[in-house]
Amino acid sequence: MLLTGTGRLAPEGPTPWALLVRDGLIAWIGSLSEAPSDERIDLGSALVTPGLIDSHTHPVFDGDRSEGVAARLAGAPYTDGGILRSVRATRAADDATLERLVETRLRSALSAGTTTVECKSGYGLSLAEELRHLRIIGRVAERMPLRVIRTFLGAHAVPSDFKAAEYAAHVADEMIPAVAAEGAAEFVDVFADVGFFDLAATERIGRAALDAGLGLRLHAEQLARTGAAELGVRLGAASVDHLEQLDASGVAILGGSTTVATLLPAPALILRDRMPPARALLEAGASVALASDANAGTYGAFGSMPLVIGLGATLLGMTVVEALTAATAGGAAALQRPELGSLRPGMAADLVAWDAEHEGAFALHLGAVRPHRIWIAGGEIAL
Amino acid sequence: MLLTGTGRLAPEGPTPWALLVRDGLIAWIGSLSEAPSDERIDLGSALVTPGLIDSHTHPVFDGDRSEGVAARLAGAPYTDGGILRSVRATRAADDATLERLVETRLRSALSAGTTTVECKSGYGLSLAEELRHLRIIGRVAERMPLRVIRTFLGAHAVPSDFKAAEYAAHVADEMIPAVAAEGAAEFVDVFADVGFFDLAATERIGRAALDAGLGLRLHAEQLARTGAAELGVRLGAASVDHLEQLDASGVAILGGSTTVATLLPAPALILRDRMPPARALLEAGASVALASDANAGTYGAFGSMPLVIGLGATLLGMTVVEALTAATAGGAAALQRPELGSLRPGMAADLVAWDAEHEGAFALHLGAVRPHRIWIAGGEIAL
Repeated sequence: MLLTGTGRLAPEGPTPWALLVRDGLIAWIGSLSEAPSDERIDLGSALVTPGLIDSHTHPVFDGDRSEGVAARLAGAPYTDGGILRSVRATRAADDATLERLVETRLRSALSAGTTTVECKSGYGLSLAEELRHLRIIGRVAERMPLRVIRTFLGAHAVPSDFKAAEYAAHVADEMIPAVAAEGAAEFVDVFADVGFFDLAATERIGRAALDAGLGLRLHAEQLARTGAAELGVRLGAASVDHLEQLDASGVAILGGSTTVATLLPAPALILRDRMPPARALLEAGASVALASDANAGTYGAFGSMPLVIGLGATLLGMTVVEALTAATAGGAAALQRPELGSLRPGMAADLVAWDAEHEGAFALHLGAVRPHRIWIAGGEIAL
Repeated sequence: MLLTGTGRLAPEGPTPWALLVRDGLIAWIGSLSEAPSDERIDLGSALVTPGLIDSHTHPVFDGDRSEGVAARLAGAPYTDGGILRSVRATRAADDATLERLVETRLRSALSAGTTTVECKSGYGLSLAEELRHLRIIGRVAERMPLRVIRTFLGAHAVPSDFKAAEYAAHVADEMIPAVAAEGAAEFVDVFADVGFFDLAATERIGRAALDAGLGLRLHAEQLARTGAAELGVRLGAASVDHLEQLDASGVAILGGSTTVATLLPAPALILRDRMPPARALLEAGASVALASDANAGTYGAFGSMPLVIGLGATLLGMTVVEALTAATAGGAAALQRPELGSLRPGMAADLVAWDAEHEGAFALHLGAVRPHRIWIAGGEIAL
């Protein structure tokens, strides 16, 4: 299959261009005039990009927290009960309800151009519930075309029937081995922040993850500058996510590491928080990803990666190309999937043709840009 | 027709509620238990609000400026040729093309819950072109159910074949009388800012508008603090729009006036500009509206009022109720349509039932909230 176009192949490519797909991979990219003969699909002047990669989402929850968000924005204290409120509602929901909710959320992501999505558990906070949520993600993933990567976030909050250190030990010693034995997740994540898991608890859980052969990612430096970014680097975490409170010393550490800095401007906006230091991270040479953080209480929209790119190019001071790259190749790096997220021979043929002419549209329209055709591994998705 | 619900009637109303519609108006609102008997439509737990009012848009243009936006965000100078670039593309487009573009944009607005929209000309900059654009708005409005209010913005920029004062005189002496004679607009708008129309030119155009029996609105205090807000108040403008550079003295003047302060957070975000002083204006007692400013070069999305409410509640520091009120009753005040934008007996029955449970969803989902039913003047719109 030969895709051809006279418009933008972004973040970078020739114009007019041709892209040969074979066996689910990009086999060749070049100028249209040099294209091999093959079955041609002409995409006209449409902007074409790699499929977007959302490397940080929490799709398994029930209940609606919009009233709590309105109360907080009107001056009520930080939390409406927050994560634990969602845990109660989610534990009470049956499998069919949660499967339907997860499927709706992932369909929304796919229809907005996300072809790879990381999905965390974390509204269960018991071994049985966390495994139930990971299995639900797995069942939905089996019947959907987008690529789904599962992360165990048992350490999302401390459940009310545990003390923090005791729960961290339970996560490390009981839950992680069970999750790994079942193959229910590839990564372990920890909410490493004040009021959640301190550095000692985070390190204990992180080492258990690595011992079990799982990858590690951290919620880090969102509420306070704790040193979680440095801990993530030291443990070889794939990514440290949030980083709103990161300072120059943390920027320098990430700039010299292979741990990806994953930035989440949408919840920072909704929480009226400061924005993470995107420009400083880019200038320090850090690998930067942009993701949605779609979740129950601090950002609700799963089909939102185009908006996240727009927020990256405005609130975070990135160029549009930097923001698009962070939402594609950056997400692939954060998920340790080097075969995804770039337009190069040998990479997966995950592609989106947009109802736009130039990647600047992600900023100009603040996310109101829609795919008109999507391919995953070279197969076209019905929209 | 009696609408009933067990959810939120926002910005304020009883729960569970009933709302009687007669002859296109809200005839009665009260508790469900006291509802008169009538044909009932049960809206369940859906959030119901007044139809949204977008009191500042520029829908008549052709051409795509997303490449210029990307270049600016990557550090290129402020303008890609800006308004005059769009003027060239729009003058070259035939009526059918522009009608199709305007209709697509207004359909996008309506399908996102906007039931009243102000539409400016301003990419013509000659009498013939400006009248053509206003007539196109009028023809599209005739075949669409949403309420359309036309504004003549001949003073959007100075065309290249005029000097500024000379063009201002032409707008005041030739164009406004012709627009008024045809009944082609209700309002006149002027881009009163540095590099566009200075206070003397703005006053000349504004007085011509008032003399011709048209209302006045101004683009004011966006690029610099010029005193355009005070001029608007002095001339009795319905609204002064933008206000990113407004200072405390300007806030005080608007707080003591009936001129509405219309805030446009989306282009301020895309231009990486400072945000207008929303909280100070509210605290000074100003009447505040939120609008999209959807246009060719600094914000492209016409179906974006839910996002604008979300940006009001985050970037502008408003509560969600304040932001929703500004996008409904505030817009009605800015357009001098006191019969629109509120849920009270005697008001127009322009209503939206949302796929959300609480107005906090406009913030939690940053605009990714959709109408599931819309009524205008009591008539349901097919979505």
